[in-house]
Amino acid sequence: MLGLKRIAIGTSRENVAFLSRACTPYRAAAFEGQEKVEVVAGGRRLVAALNLVDDPAILPPDCLGLSQEAFSRFGLPEGTIVRLDHPHPPRSRDALQAKIEGRELDGDGYRAIIDDIAHHRYGKVEVAAFLVGCGAFMTTAETLALTRAMADVGERLEWPGAPLVVDKHCIGGIPGNRTSMIVVPIVAAHGLPMPKTSSRAITSPAGTADTMEVLANVEVGLDHMREIVAAVKGCLVWGGHVKLSPADDVLIAVERPLNIDTREQMVASILSKKKAAGSTHLVIDMPVGPSAKLRSAADAARLRKLFEHVGDAIGLNLRVTLSDGSQPVGRGIGPVLEARDVMAVLENSPTAPEDLRERSLSLAGRILEFDPALRGGAGMARARDLLESGAAMKAMRRIMELQGPPPRIATLGALQREVVADHDGRVATIDCYRLARIARLAGAPFDPGAGIDLLKKVGDPVQAGEPLYRIHAEREVEFRFACGLAAEASGYHVNGNNGNGSASALGDIH
Amino acid sequence: MLGLKRIAIGTSRENVAFLSRACTPYRAAAFEGQEKVEVVAGGRRLVAALNLVDDPAILPPDCLGLSQEAFSRFGLPEGTIVRLDHPHPPRSRDALQAKIEGRELDGDGYRAIIDDIAHHRYGKVEVAAFLVGCGAFMTTAETLALTRAMADVGERLEWPGAPLVVDKHCIGGIPGNRTSMIVVPIVAAHGLPMPKTSSRAITSPAGTADTMEVLANVEVGLDHMREIVAAVKGCLVWGGHVKLSPADDVLIAVERPLNIDTREQMVASILSKKKAAGSTHLVIDMPVGPSAKLRSAADAARLRKLFEHVGDAIGLNLRVTLSDGSQPVGRGIGPVLEARDVMAVLENSPTAPEDLRERSLSLAGRILEFDPALRGGAGMARARDLLESGAAMKAMRRIMELQGPPPRIATLGALQREVVADHDGRVATIDCYRLARIARLAGAPFDPGAGIDLLKKVGDPVQAGEPLYRIHAEREVEFRFACGLAAEASGYHVNGNNGNGSASALGDIH
Repeated sequence: MLGLKRIAIGTSRENVAFLSRACTPYRAAAFEGQEKVEVVAGGRRLVAALNLVDDPAILPPDCLGLSQEAFSRFGLPEGTIVRLDHPHPPRSRDALQAKIEGRELDGDGYRAIIDDIAHHRYGKVEVAAFLVGCGAFMTTAETLALTRAMADVGERLEWPGAPLVVDKHCIGGIPGNRTSMIVVPIVAAHGLPMPKTSSRAITSPAGTADTMEVLANVEVGLDHMREIVAAVKGCLVWGGHVKLSPADDVLIAVERPLNIDTREQMVASILSKKKAAGSTHLVIDMPVGPSAKLRSAADAARLRKLFEHVGDAIGLNLRVTLSDGSQPVGRGIGPVLEARDVMAVLENSPTAPEDLRERSLSLAGRILEFDPALRGGAGMARARDLLESGAAMKAMRRIMELQGPPPRIATLGALQREVVADHDGRVATIDCYRLARIARLAGAPFDPGAGIDLLKKVGDPVQAGEPLYRIHAEREVEFRFACGLAAEASGYHVNGNNGNGSASALGDIH
Repeated sequence: MLGLKRIAIGTSRENVAFLSRACTPYRAAAFEGQEKVEVVAGGRRLVAALNLVDDPAILPPDCLGLSQEAFSRFGLPEGTIVRLDHPHPPRSRDALQAKIEGRELDGDGYRAIIDDIAHHRYGKVEVAAFLVGCGAFMTTAETLALTRAMADVGERLEWPGAPLVVDKHCIGGIPGNRTSMIVVPIVAAHGLPMPKTSSRAITSPAGTADTMEVLANVEVGLDHMREIVAAVKGCLVWGGHVKLSPADDVLIAVERPLNIDTREQMVASILSKKKAAGSTHLVIDMPVGPSAKLRSAADAARLRKLFEHVGDAIGLNLRVTLSDGSQPVGRGIGPVLEARDVMAVLENSPTAPEDLRERSLSLAGRILEFDPALRGGAGMARARDLLESGAAMKAMRRIMELQGPPPRIATLGALQREVVADHDGRVATIDCYRLARIARLAGAPFDPGAGIDLLKKVGDPVQAGEPLYRIHAEREVEFRFACGLAAEASGYHVNGNNGNGSASALGDIH
């Protein structure tokens, strides 16, 4: 009764349907109380939020519009005759209601909810309600049930013939902590399979996929990925082509703006993806520091127990390591600058950031010790050998070659400004969150050459007027955003003659 | 740098901004992580969710579009030069975070949150998070703080010279419970001021405003409302012109689809509006029944205590009465049918539904006893006098006359079908929720002539083939929706020879 029309509007992850207020077969207002409709055609049903349209140039009265994402999910061509129905409640409605009311759910409850979320049958409001309900009350058994449900709803990778498939994951929050790009070539050079899929940054200035894309193509399909791993044991690709945990993508999109970052969601998110990716052995890096996600050893211990409990229950051999999360790692923040640091380490350059190298070696050593053939405690030394001998660099070159050239040549942003100390002293603290925000505003990761180059780290002496870091940007608007934020507060705290002043100033534009 | 453009799309209560993916001054992707932007021009700032547009016919690349609601809230003409900023977190961000994490908030916290909600600085996701956080944990002191914050953020009505301003409120859920339209004229005839503002239905088949609109104009401005109350003591108008609790409108829009109906939110919602409307004395009707909002006397007692606690603290003289919520009240469900029942009671017609009359007299009696001049216990008799003498009918005629004629002549929907019993027996139960759903699908309240006419009530004997109720609709699509739902389950349970069968059948179309 209505003709289907694709509306060229992207509405993020939420399905949106458009109906003309002048529509005659249906009265838009009748659907308004519930704010949702079910679009029906050819045995398919799609639940969508309803927006009403008054402009026939956007949508004629005899059409039903779907947003870009909803249209492609519905999967029928324009012009298809569709009808509208009042939305049937999702199958998991009772389970969601129970979670909102603070009750404990069993495995069936989580399976139903995660299935509806993964198939976009929840709106953002229901997703938010689920997350807050989980945050308010969630047992360890529930965290396990959620992890299983999230791993089961997506695709599963298998690596036949490989008794060990290793992986590492950092819980995040520390800019420049790009260890995966050093760990993978070391572990691959040793001969353990490490098929690493990484995400692009969502709210941080760079994800591993963004930084790797400065050096090589990362949009690699599953078959190609298998070939690369068969040839060289490791890869560093973007995980977006493989829907390992489709529910997690939806949850994250709502968690971020709400700043929800519960231990339970984190464990379920990370472990469901690793399980679905076919990993058997996993090292988790948990940085602890005053501006990191984990502020204290006590916080870290609780999270570690939860990781271990769920990891054991789903059959992942899992080791948690704590690391220093008191300041950014390396010197660069942003894809081009981080790739520079990574390559300096792999090339054994004398200017390579030592903290990035040592953290990478430590993590690689832990992973290598999963190898039964390696003597206990020998992992770190083996990792150092593989790095210093150039074997890791060779493996990296091979991975880059097999993944193919990067989609574009990324160079450092030409717009730059130094942020300088305004008094003599010593760098006392660097706020990770603040620097990530500034780098992000500068354009990273969308402009890969944007970011921050750290010229001083914690403990370094500085003189008034000496630069603390340099902001790089590719574009005017972003450059101004970033400099504006840095001018409000640099993120550096310099102890010195001037008391506890954190003050700093913007230098001239170069 | 971008020209402002109004996009003729209604996005309900959420502000939505549209940006072309081809936009050059701003890179849309840079705003995507946070999913929101702040639109800035002439000292005004508006936070909006961001949708990306690929069709220059909807939005040229050098423009920034705003949805209908967002455009009118921003308040600047099309073509205004605007710029985009990364959104500043709302002032209440820390308080929201604390509530999400299950902590107790003080008055400042609630004031900050309610101020941001009322001014549309929250998206639906934040509103949902707030509601679920409150549902998970909320003290009585917090309920009071929330009520005060909600009352303070809106407009306040004052009724100078009236020592008593009375009101009544039913917590809802029982179709046909249209007592206000009988209580107001009785109380007005007695001489107590009762300036009743009512809502339109959101998810029910009729609100008092919808039913009153069958008889008179209800879209009355504040000055006109004062004149009517000065002349005749009472009125029955739509509350939408007076923003008594603007935050509540936003909260309700998210509560309904999530089916959140906590005691705390209900108390804050109702009492904040009554306080803001200048009421001094209030009777609250709480129907209790198996398909009502309150299922047991224990539920009712808890809710009653909370109403009394908060009512006392904000200076409302409040009485709670329990009533029978086991079945719909009167015979009609839907605006035209309910208006018919109301007028039959006011006209003292022998066919008037007795349950509607007696409930109304009981409530009116309670309200009249707020009058210090009336002897204790004499309220109900006084109410009956005013009804039976025709004084109430006279007051109602005067109210209708002063409010003006209805915007259109509403008549009973011509499409009709009877739902009949399929075995002999006696009506055991009627599901209030089910009948409300059927009436709603039939088109009520948008088609005022749509609804359900109940031909049998609980306890009535029925024979197989005898009609239980009649569905009325104005339009084909809605008629089929309603008949389809009734065919799945009628909502009637008839005990009889046929065991416990609730079965019934659809009769012929008349």
